[in-house]
Amino acid sequence: MTGQTDRTRFGRKPDRGSHERADFDAVVDAARIGHLGFVVDGEPRVLPMAYGRDGDFIVFHGSTGARPFRLLAEGAPCCFTVTHLDGLVLARSAFDSSMNYRSAVLLGQCERIDDEAEKWRVLDVITDHLLPGRRPSLRPMQRKEVAATMVLRLPIVEFSVKSRTGGPGDEPEDIHFPVWAGVLPMQTTFGAPVPADDLDAGIAEPDYLRTWRA
Amino acid sequence: MTGQTDRTRFGRKPDRGSHERADFDAVVDAARIGHLGFVVDGEPRVLPMAYGRDGDFIVFHGSTGARPFRLLAEGAPCCFTVTHLDGLVLARSAFDSSMNYRSAVLLGQCERIDDEAEKWRVLDVITDHLLPGRRPSLRPMQRKEVAATMVLRLPIVEFSVKSRTGGPGDEPEDIHFPVWAGVLPMQTTFGAPVPADDLDAGIAEPDYLRTWRA
Repeated sequence: MTGQTDRTRFGRKPDRGSHERADFDAVVDAARIGHLGFVVDGEPRVLPMAYGRDGDFIVFHGSTGARPFRLLAEGAPCCFTVTHLDGLVLARSAFDSSMNYRSAVLLGQCERIDDEAEKWRVLDVITDHLLPGRRPSLRPMQRKEVAATMVLRLPIVEFSVKSRTGGPGDEPEDIHFPVWAGVLPMQTTFGAPVPADDLDAGIAEPDYLRTWRA
Repeated sequence: MTGQTDRTRFGRKPDRGSHERADFDAVVDAARIGHLGFVVDGEPRVLPMAYGRDGDFIVFHGSTGARPFRLLAEGAPCCFTVTHLDGLVLARSAFDSSMNYRSAVLLGQCERIDDEAEKWRVLDVITDHLLPGRRPSLRPMQRKEVAATMVLRLPIVEFSVKSRTGGPGDEPEDIHFPVWAGVLPMQTTFGAPVPADDLDAGIAEPDYLRTWRA
């Protein structure tokens, strides 16, 4: 499966790009937030957004009262972009210095999920993406909570993936310029869990906190 | 100075919002990439983008051949959003679980900088933002590199900042549900520097690598 269309064809540096579905999934499955763009009165808006992946759809949830969600539910064109910054690439020159990254861009229109059983299922998918393994231990979801939540899905059809890995690409004449060159890797990590102020005594930290990937 | 306008007024959860310039600067000064949104044929596009802050402007650089840069240089409306994900907020319910974050949104139109001396200066500002302290040791910038680079500035006038901090906000009736609740902090960190394959022998790791904030 490929996500290439006229709208997702690469302009510059196509060697850094992919339209393979497996590459798209790898980028989005490894993050918890992306940036969702839409158009209001002809002008762009970009908001950070938590999400999940439900098979061939990226799924979002939000308050039924949120303006962006109402707009998206009406089928407004949107662009969802997920980026991992993996490192700073230090070349001998500023011009050739760069960043290592993985980024996925998905274009399309959201569909609102109205069926209550399906909303329930998709909300579970989002919870499992954001907080894997935690759902069975939670206070069960309530019908009024599902009713207050809008659930949208964006088909994974038209997409592109771009990434850069590896060391600096200096011009041959710069290689011996006497400055350190290489990559400073970056990663997101979890700190020590901070219990809620009102946590009941005797409740231990769950194992899943130690198995999650940031 | 405040960034509030009709377009940046808060809809939901205004208590999590700010229009203070100091709050905006704190968010953008602590990151290296943001997500830039613009409109192509009525449809949104969102791309990750490195940047700097030059006083009252966010500044970008890119290839003169890049399509998005040409569009932005023509004054297309844009939205630049910078987000830090600071932690996962684990409530007793999925509904009240959340994320701690800091996010800044800037609306406006870019201006292209054509004056060569000014381009040179702004490119230095971007290098100093991305790789602070490194510029004096680099192979000096060349006129042809400056000529091949488009430099844009986006005025910091119309903006908003939103953030969430602290522990979960469970409903009173959920507080004693027997599940661990609290915050799992997240942060971006640097790994050990990886020297370039073709780095000349005897060039030591510079001190600034150890002082940078991820």
